[in-house]
Amino acid sequence: MIQYKAPMRDIQFLINDVFDFQSHYKNIPGGEEASPEMVDAILGEAARFSEEVLSPLYQVGDEGCTFDNGEVTTPKGFKEAYKQYVDGGWQGMSAPVAYGGQGLPLSLGVVKSEMMATANWVWNMYPGLSMGAMNTVYMHGTEEQKQTYLIPMTEGRWTGTMCLTEPQCGTDLGQVKTKAELNADGSYNLTGTKIFISSGEHDFTDNIVHIVLARLPNAPEGTRGISLFIVPKFNVNADGSLGERNPVTCGSIEHKMGIHGSSTCVMNFDNAKGFLIGPENKGLQCMFTFMNTARIGTSIQGVGAAELSFQGALPYARDRRSMRSLSGKKSPDKVADAIIVHPDVRRMLLTQKAIAEGGRAMLYYAAMLADKMTAAHDRGDTKGYEEWDDKLGFQTPILKAFLTELGYEAANHGVQVYGGHGFIKEWGMEQIIRDTQIAKLYEGTTGVQALDLLGRKVLMGKLKPFNDFREVVSEFIITHENKAEMKPFIKQLKRSMLAWRINTMRIAYKASKDRDMVGSASVDYLMYSGYIVMAFFWAKMADAAFTQLKSGGDADFYRAKIQTAEFYYDRMLPRAKGHGKMMLKDPKSLMQMKDEHFSF
Amino acid sequence: MIQYKAPMRDIQFLINDVFDFQSHYKNIPGGEEASPEMVDAILGEAARFSEEVLSPLYQVGDEGCTFDNGEVTTPKGFKEAYKQYVDGGWQGMSAPVAYGGQGLPLSLGVVKSEMMATANWVWNMYPGLSMGAMNTVYMHGTEEQKQTYLIPMTEGRWTGTMCLTEPQCGTDLGQVKTKAELNADGSYNLTGTKIFISSGEHDFTDNIVHIVLARLPNAPEGTRGISLFIVPKFNVNADGSLGERNPVTCGSIEHKMGIHGSSTCVMNFDNAKGFLIGPENKGLQCMFTFMNTARIGTSIQGVGAAELSFQGALPYARDRRSMRSLSGKKSPDKVADAIIVHPDVRRMLLTQKAIAEGGRAMLYYAAMLADKMTAAHDRGDTKGYEEWDDKLGFQTPILKAFLTELGYEAANHGVQVYGGHGFIKEWGMEQIIRDTQIAKLYEGTTGVQALDLLGRKVLMGKLKPFNDFREVVSEFIITHENKAEMKPFIKQLKRSMLAWRINTMRIAYKASKDRDMVGSASVDYLMYSGYIVMAFFWAKMADAAFTQLKSGGDADFYRAKIQTAEFYYDRMLPRAKGHGKMMLKDPKSLMQMKDEHFSF
Repeated sequence: MIQYKAPMRDIQFLINDVFDFQSHYKNIPGGEEASPEMVDAILGEAARFSEEVLSPLYQVGDEGCTFDNGEVTTPKGFKEAYKQYVDGGWQGMSAPVAYGGQGLPLSLGVVKSEMMATANWVWNMYPGLSMGAMNTVYMHGTEEQKQTYLIPMTEGRWTGTMCLTEPQCGTDLGQVKTKAELNADGSYNLTGTKIFISSGEHDFTDNIVHIVLARLPNAPEGTRGISLFIVPKFNVNADGSLGERNPVTCGSIEHKMGIHGSSTCVMNFDNAKGFLIGPENKGLQCMFTFMNTARIGTSIQGVGAAELSFQGALPYARDRRSMRSLSGKKSPDKVADAIIVHPDVRRMLLTQKAIAEGGRAMLYYAAMLADKMTAAHDRGDTKGYEEWDDKLGFQTPILKAFLTELGYEAANHGVQVYGGHGFIKEWGMEQIIRDTQIAKLYEGTTGVQALDLLGRKVLMGKLKPFNDFREVVSEFIITHENKAEMKPFIKQLKRSMLAWRINTMRIAYKASKDRDMVGSASVDYLMYSGYIVMAFFWAKMADAAFTQLKSGGDADFYRAKIQTAEFYYDRMLPRAKGHGKMMLKDPKSLMQMKDEHFSF
Repeated sequence: MIQYKAPMRDIQFLINDVFDFQSHYKNIPGGEEASPEMVDAILGEAARFSEEVLSPLYQVGDEGCTFDNGEVTTPKGFKEAYKQYVDGGWQGMSAPVAYGGQGLPLSLGVVKSEMMATANWVWNMYPGLSMGAMNTVYMHGTEEQKQTYLIPMTEGRWTGTMCLTEPQCGTDLGQVKTKAELNADGSYNLTGTKIFISSGEHDFTDNIVHIVLARLPNAPEGTRGISLFIVPKFNVNADGSLGERNPVTCGSIEHKMGIHGSSTCVMNFDNAKGFLIGPENKGLQCMFTFMNTARIGTSIQGVGAAELSFQGALPYARDRRSMRSLSGKKSPDKVADAIIVHPDVRRMLLTQKAIAEGGRAMLYYAAMLADKMTAAHDRGDTKGYEEWDDKLGFQTPILKAFLTELGYEAANHGVQVYGGHGFIKEWGMEQIIRDTQIAKLYEGTTGVQALDLLGRKVLMGKLKPFNDFREVVSEFIITHENKAEMKPFIKQLKRSMLAWRINTMRIAYKASKDRDMVGSASVDYLMYSGYIVMAFFWAKMADAAFTQLKSGGDADFYRAKIQTAEFYYDRMLPRAKGHGKMMLKDPKSLMQMKDEHFSF
C-alpha cells in the first residue's frame, strides 16, 4: 500500500522560487487574499486531508462502486471523506464569492487539486467533475440558474455532471441525438441516452445537477444544432428545497479497467425536465469556453500518476536487495545491494521524478495563465480574455496529452521497479497504471489533443500562440545564456527551439499541399513539442535552483533539482529526435494502404 | 469480444516466401516428417483449435481462478479445452520421439504455440510452463527420471512447473533459501516457500511435477550452491501409478493485474520428497541451458498481444464513424466517416501490424536457430551446439524484451483506437494490456534482459555474437543493394548497421573505463538494437514480397507487405535515434544523485 505524502518542498520551490506566486497574485482578483500565510495554511490543510483521509482510501476504492436498481453505492469511506471535504469548504475555494465561493486564485486551487488528485484520483473525480458543471452555470447560466444550482454545487451540497457522450458518438458530438422539446412553462423535456457519465449517480449528495447536450426539434444537423440544458436529479422548488424526482435515471454502471471507485453511468433521460442554458444551438460553443480549464484538470492525473508511482517505487528501490552493483559492492555486509544502486533502476526512478516535477511546473504555469484569463473575464476585458485564452489554449493539448502519456509511462516504470511484485494488486502499483489509462482517453484522446494542437492552435492560429510561447522562451534564453552554470541547458534549449520553429514551418508548408499531413504529423508533433516545453521548464527550475544555491539555500535540495534537470536534458529530451524525424514524413506511408488490405 | 482468426496468410508468407522452412527442414532431424502437407495439416488444425476452442475462452478466463483450501479451480472451460489439447497430442509435438513426442521441429512447435498463445495467452501458460519442466528433465534427468516424469508430461497427462522465485529473491537466485536434505534412500526432503509459481496448482491433471531450486546443507553461498530437484505433487510408484500425496501444497494464489486465469501460486514445501536432477550445486547452470528457448516462449506473448489487439482494433476502426477525413468526406452518405480514414488511427493500426508481423519474423528466425541448436545437441556436436546457442543467445534478450515492450505498446494502441470504449471490459481490449504487462516482468524484466544483451552477450562475448549477426545482415545487404526496388530499404538499413557497430564499440570503450556504463546504456541499447533487428526482417519481408509480386503472386497481399515495410522504415525505425543518443551518454546523470536526495 502506498502512503501519499504531499511533496511540499517541491511545491514551495515552484510557487516561491520558480514562479513567485506572490508577485503574480498582485494582479489577480482574489490574489490579495492569498497571502503567504494563507497559502501555507491552505496547502498544509490540503496536504493533511490528502495524506490522512484520501490516501488510505485509494486502494479501497479499487473495490469499486456497486449498482442496485438505479442506486450507486460508492466505496467504503468515500462518502464520509466527501463530507469532510464539504465541511472544509474546499469545493468553493476558487469559486466566485458572489455564489458561495472564497474567490481565491484558480492557480491555488490547482495546487490543492493536485494534492487531492494524487492521493486519490478516483475519489477526486466526484468533486472534479462537479467543477465542470459549476463553470458552465457560472459562464452561461442566468442569475436565477446561478442562485438555484451554482450555489449548492459551490458549497458541495450538490454535485454536477457533464452529459455529452452517447453510444454512437464521443468526440464527434455533432451526432448527438438526445432530444429536448419545449414545454408550455418554458422548461424542456429531454429524452435520450447518455453514456460514460462520471458521477452520474452516487451517494454523496441529495441532488445531482446534470449538464446535458441535446437537440431541439428542427435544430440544424451536426454541431450547429446542439443546445445545453440543466437537468437536476430532483427538481428544485422556488425556496430551494427539493421537489419531485426527475425521470433521469442511472441504467447501469460500466465495468472498467480502472477508476473502479468512480461511477461511470449510463444515464437515461425519459422526458426529464430540463432548462436551457446559454443560447439555443450554441451548446458546443458554450462547452468550449471552459475546455481549457477542464483539460488542465485532466492533465493533473498525469502529474499525479507520476508522483504517486514514484512515491511507491522509491522506498521499494531502497529496501529491496538484488544483485551487486557492477561498479563494486555497495553494502558488502548485506546479502545483496539495494536495487537503487543499479543504473537502470535509477533511470526509471529519475524518469518518474523528472516527469512529476517537470509536469508540475508545466501545470502551475498553465494555472497562472488561467488566473490571468479569469481576471480578464471578470473585469470584462474581452480582448484580454481572448489573448490569455489563446496562450493557455496552446498549452492545454500539450498538458493534457503529453502529461497523461508520460504519467502513464511513469506508472509503468513504477511497476517495473517492483519486478514481478508490481503485478500483484496488494502493492498498489498496478492500480496506478489501470487508473491512469483513462487519462489518455477521456476529455479528448491523445490523437484528438494532437489535432487540436497542430491543426487548430498552431496552423489555424497562424502560428500566433506558438510564436507567443516561443517569445517567452526566447526571453529566458537571452537573459540566461551568459550565465556559466546555465550554458549546457541554454545551448540545448536554444537548438531545440530553433528546430521546433523550422520543423513547424515545414509541416505548415506540407500541410498546405496535403491536408492529411496534419493528422499524419500530429501525435509526433505533440510529443515532440511536449519534450521541448518540458525542457524549458527544467531549465527554469535549474536556474531557480542555481540562484537559491548561491544565496545559501538548502544545498542538497537545490543540487538534486539541478541533477534532475541534467538527467532530463541527457536522457529524456533526446526522445524528441525520433518524433521530430517521424513527424516530417510524407503522409504516404500512412495513407497508401487500402482499408481492405490491412488484413487478409 | 475479440474473435481470434489465425493469420494463416501471414504465417505462410514467412514459412514459405521469407524463410523457406522446407529447405531448412532438410537439415533438421524430424524435418523429413514436416512435409508441406503435414505442415498444412498441423497448422490448419492448430488454427481451428485456437479459433474455436481457445479464443472463446479468453475473456472467460479473466474471471480468474478460485482457491479453496489448497485446491485451485481454473476458469470455466479451461480444463475441457486442455483435455482436447491432450487428445490432439499437441504437447509432445516437438518433443523427442523416445519420450512420447512426435519429434517435429521446434520451429513448427513455435508456429503452433504462437496461434494458441495469441488466441488465449493465459490458457496457454499451463502447457507452456510444462514445456520448461519437460526441457529440464530431458536435458538433465537420468533415464529413469525421463521415463517416470518426462513421458507423462509429454503426453500431457501431467504438467510441470518451475519453482525458482522466493519472497526475498527473483532475479537474484543466489539468495534462494529453500533447503534440501538427503534421505537414506537417496531422495531429499525439501523445505521452504516458493512464490509466483505459475500453474503450481490446478485442476487439469492428476499430477504436477515441480522443478525446484534449493540448497543442500553446507552448499556454498550464492549462485554456486543451488541445486535442482524434481518434486512431484504425488509420489510415483514403480509402476508409474500415483502414490501418496507429497507435502508440497499451494498456500494461496495471487491477486494480479492480469492473467487472472493463470494460477500464480505460493507453494509451501514442508519436508516434501524430491529427487536431485543434474549435478549438485549446478542447478543454476542447468536452468540456463534452456533459458534461450524459454525466452522465445515469453516473446511470443509480445507478438500475440500485438496480433490480437490489432485483430480487435481493425474491425472497430472500419465500423466506428466519427468526424470527417481532413482531405474530404469519404462516406458522404453516412453520418460521419469510418475512423480508419484518419491518419492517426492508421498510424496506430499500422504500428500494431508492423509489430505483429515484424515480431513474428524475428520469432520464426530465432526458432530456426533453435532447430539448428537442437539438431547439434541431438547429434552430440557440442561445438555446433554452443555456436548455435550463442547465435540464438544474442537474439533472445532482444526478442524477449523488445517484443514484449512493443507488444504492450500495440495493446495500448488497440485501446486508443476504441477511445473510451477501450477502457470498458466487455470489449476485451483492456484485458490485453493487463495480461501483457507481466510479459515485461517475468522470465527476467526488460532491465535484466538488457544487461544480458549488452553485458553478457555483446561485451563479455567480445562482440562475437553481435558480429555474427551483423554478417547475416551484411550478406543480405550485399546481395540486395543493387535491386532498384530495395534501394530505399537497403540504404537505411546499411546506415543503421554502421551506426550500430560504431555505437557498440563506443559503449564498449566507455564501459572499459566505467563499469556503470553497461547498466546506464543497457535498456536504450536493447531498444535501439531491437528497432534495427526488426528493420532487417522488414527488409527481408519486403524483398520476398517484391520477388513474389514479380512472379505473379497475390498482388494485393504482397503490396500490403511492402507498404507495411515502408511504414516501418518511415515511422518506427527513426525511434532508434533517441535511444541511440541516450545510450551514449555518460553514466553521470544517472549515478550522481545520492540515494537520500531522490526525495525531500
